[in-house]
Amino acid sequence: MSDRIRIVILGGGFGGVYTAMHLERLLGRDSRVEIALVNRENYFVFQPLLAEVVSGNIGLLDTVSPISRLIPRCRLYVRQVESVDLEARTVTLAPGSRPQPLVLSYDHLVLATGTVTDFRGMTGLQQHAMPFKTLADAVRLRNHLITVLHEADIEADDARRQQLLSFVVAGGGFSGVEVAAEMNDFLRAAAARLHTDRSREIRVVLVHSGQRILERELSPSLGLYAQKILQRRGVEIRLGQRLLTATGDAAVLANGERIAARTVVSTVPAFANPLLAALPLPQEGGRILVDGHMEVVGHANLWAVGDAARIPNGADGEFAPPTAQHATREAAVLAANIAARIRGGRLQKFAFPGLGKMGSLGHRSAVAELFGRIRLSGFPAWVMWRFVYWWKLPGFDRKLRVAFSWLLDLLVPPETVQLRLESHGGVQELHFEPGEYVFREGDRGDSLYVLISGSAEVVTTGENGAERVLTVLQAGQFFGEIAMLQQRNRTASVRCCTAMNVVALPQGQFQTLARHLPQFREGFESTMAERLQRDAE
Amino acid sequence: MSDRIRIVILGGGFGGVYTAMHLERLLGRDSRVEIALVNRENYFVFQPLLAEVVSGNIGLLDTVSPISRLIPRCRLYVRQVESVDLEARTVTLAPGSRPQPLVLSYDHLVLATGTVTDFRGMTGLQQHAMPFKTLADAVRLRNHLITVLHEADIEADDARRQQLLSFVVAGGGFSGVEVAAEMNDFLRAAAARLHTDRSREIRVVLVHSGQRILERELSPSLGLYAQKILQRRGVEIRLGQRLLTATGDAAVLANGERIAARTVVSTVPAFANPLLAALPLPQEGGRILVDGHMEVVGHANLWAVGDAARIPNGADGEFAPPTAQHATREAAVLAANIAARIRGGRLQKFAFPGLGKMGSLGHRSAVAELFGRIRLSGFPAWVMWRFVYWWKLPGFDRKLRVAFSWLLDLLVPPETVQLRLESHGGVQELHFEPGEYVFREGDRGDSLYVLISGSAEVVTTGENGAERVLTVLQAGQFFGEIAMLQQRNRTASVRCCTAMNVVALPQGQFQTLARHLPQFREGFESTMAERLQRDAE
Repeated sequence: MSDRIRIVILGGGFGGVYTAMHLERLLGRDSRVEIALVNRENYFVFQPLLAEVVSGNIGLLDTVSPISRLIPRCRLYVRQVESVDLEARTVTLAPGSRPQPLVLSYDHLVLATGTVTDFRGMTGLQQHAMPFKTLADAVRLRNHLITVLHEADIEADDARRQQLLSFVVAGGGFSGVEVAAEMNDFLRAAAARLHTDRSREIRVVLVHSGQRILERELSPSLGLYAQKILQRRGVEIRLGQRLLTATGDAAVLANGERIAARTVVSTVPAFANPLLAALPLPQEGGRILVDGHMEVVGHANLWAVGDAARIPNGADGEFAPPTAQHATREAAVLAANIAARIRGGRLQKFAFPGLGKMGSLGHRSAVAELFGRIRLSGFPAWVMWRFVYWWKLPGFDRKLRVAFSWLLDLLVPPETVQLRLESHGGVQELHFEPGEYVFREGDRGDSLYVLISGSAEVVTTGENGAERVLTVLQAGQFFGEIAMLQQRNRTASVRCCTAMNVVALPQGQFQTLARHLPQFREGFESTMAERLQRDAE
Repeated sequence: MSDRIRIVILGGGFGGVYTAMHLERLLGRDSRVEIALVNRENYFVFQPLLAEVVSGNIGLLDTVSPISRLIPRCRLYVRQVESVDLEARTVTLAPGSRPQPLVLSYDHLVLATGTVTDFRGMTGLQQHAMPFKTLADAVRLRNHLITVLHEADIEADDARRQQLLSFVVAGGGFSGVEVAAEMNDFLRAAAARLHTDRSREIRVVLVHSGQRILERELSPSLGLYAQKILQRRGVEIRLGQRLLTATGDAAVLANGERIAARTVVSTVPAFANPLLAALPLPQEGGRILVDGHMEVVGHANLWAVGDAARIPNGADGEFAPPTAQHATREAAVLAANIAARIRGGRLQKFAFPGLGKMGSLGHRSAVAELFGRIRLSGFPAWVMWRFVYWWKLPGFDRKLRVAFSWLLDLLVPPETVQLRLESHGGVQELHFEPGEYVFREGDRGDSLYVLISGSAEVVTTGENGAERVLTVLQAGQFFGEIAMLQQRNRTASVRCCTAMNVVALPQGQFQTLARHLPQFREGFESTMAERLQRDAE
């Protein structure tokens, strides 16, 4: 252990990285001080441009910068944070290359962990809705869109193709509107280039609980303008509605409307990082209470910044909203305060009136409201939107890359390369609504299922075409073992009776466990024997 | 079913895609003909530049083009091929969006499935060596290199850090040499930019079975030149050696040398696609025997092209080597032959003398041998190498992108963003050599293990520091359940006695199965109770 003063920053978003950047400038050459930043990823994501990754207007990695390049004099820990001990002044990081956790002690701790998307407790969404928050979310969504387009291209059945080409986005804030707009642009352009032009079959539905999109963010006239633009481009908008649940086959709205779709994106729930929620700190609405200096109330040298903090804004007497422009200004003040605490000096209070709000509507239009007075829309707003964010991109090479990507975007048709790295090896949870099928007689057997909650009936169709219910399955029972153990097609259909959750263990995993763990295999074999006996009767 | 003539091409590499491109030109406007191409990915990889992805000299997706853009009039099936029925003239594709396989009938079938990397039967390599063949391989390798660099940066133990910073590449052909060169460049540059400069600790070892690298590909003087260049840049070359096995901790060579390393890349084994191996077709060395027209011997309208085929070359009386320059020329002849068969006309024989061979050595040098006479090395060869491959890149936008990436590479330091999408959810196989530890007492418990072959001893260290062997584990037994069920650190160490293979079921998976499948949990609980009892005695 050195006797240097160690500042540990948790989180590599706008709040954390910009605090570190300012600290480097203020204290980076001070040999008494050591700055460390912990983040799960080794890159910083420039969030405002993330939606453009989906449409491919910019390259996959154009929105991100390696953190170590932005803060070369800080020590970077690419690890997950497991816990914080406020008494002992230590942070425990999850194991990395060795199977032991790593414990960092600190003198100053900056909580900059932002918010997380969390569908917990939201039936069906946890299993089937795609979040849109991180770079991985954006890349996964893009890959998924490309997959359904390719599948639609070779799908002869009209209903199945329509399901593949229907897309539901929940949330009418900036994030939801931008994703819906970019998806809509990309899907229509890409579908027009399929073997058969399918652009007219694309259906993008934006679901919003309010009476107008962007109602919290913008004035009524701009919100209505945005609504009109999206509708003109073919986005269907459902106002006063809420996404109730999702399955692998459909999105279900609170009014009972069922939209057959394979793609459901939700930008809605933003919660406090569970790490912070577990700490004995004053919190409100999942945000840590800090004073105007961004020091946690009642805890010396413990600071919070960005979306994770509830920061009184000296400029308007409100609390600072969770935006990038506020986080970067908070970071500058916070870094100055930490430097003042270490070297002596007065602490500053955070005060920033905000410059305005902007949102892209895709396809060369946007909406913007500046200094609470100036309103811009359409192409001028879009030009400003692009220029402002481009200017704010950290680093010269990032600016070059993005400028070049935008240039290419004007010259060449949309890119549809699908970079798939995920190995769908693991156990998955799935949700079904009544009447939906887990699988049908004759399907290829690709998973074993365990029923966690709800109930399902096992049915076969006899030679006369009449349906026969073989049995009803309850929570705790497994099914689908026959096709797995005998490596043949499904011998019966399984249909959901009451809303249910199941765990699916994929074929490859099942076979590996069955081969090497006799006790595992035997349990399934005996049940299978009983069931085959029963069905034969 | 239509009564059009359907040509089905299996494989989206140089052979398959270029055949489709030529067929489009010859038959694309012929309404009697339908062309379909099946490939697992939706993109074509420009293989010669793949090694540059590792170093980040070009962007992740610069080497790939969406297949549908290259052959817009063909129907693209982004699916895996399950089987071919030569009698019925059908191809069965794995299920996609529906859980049933898709059956395509064909009139002409083109086998262009190339070769696959396959470590089967090679102890330890299957579990721990990283292949280098596909884009996913390149991206995974790059991500892995970035991970070990970050881990090395925060690793205080010298031996562990040296292990993290040691890299072994097996195979001294073009592929192995290019990967070793690019890795070496990238690692040294990136390590120099870590918090502490670690570039001097980087160790890259190239293992080759011959007496000189590139001995099959180039003349002795160029091979020796390449060797000298690599050695000057710090690559250690082990000649007359073979990679015998690999574990999570080391690479073991045939002479018994053990190199402690976390990264082992092998470019060696290229096998026929298992799909082809299963077909009752004349084959030699895993390649399908075809006549000079590229028609499979004894099978009308069944064709093979590229690395999958053994094609007599009219130019030299030999068989065409597995290179991109040959595959693209084969494709042109093959497409003309299929068109001639359909429309009537004479079939051509393949004859191409080859233009030469080139390999990059990274860092602005290369080696090349043209028309069997001209030899180039160093910077001129590198300029030619870049220009030739850039010129051969399909599509204008790809040329633009790559040119821009190369330009950026001159201006800015290497990029280290790590795009991680993999979810390490599934069961993994691991290999251990005698004396290695699966885990040690006090480690965090992150997996349950099943011993498949070999044996291991369970040991603890008493208060006096003396080691005590608790038991010896044999194949079929599982271990590590105590830490998993009781969620605590390992209570003992497990050390390999005889070379062994184990299956690891990660924590998350184990807990999900244990929670929902009572029979699964109970089996482990009873064994755990017995073992705790025994250890307490």
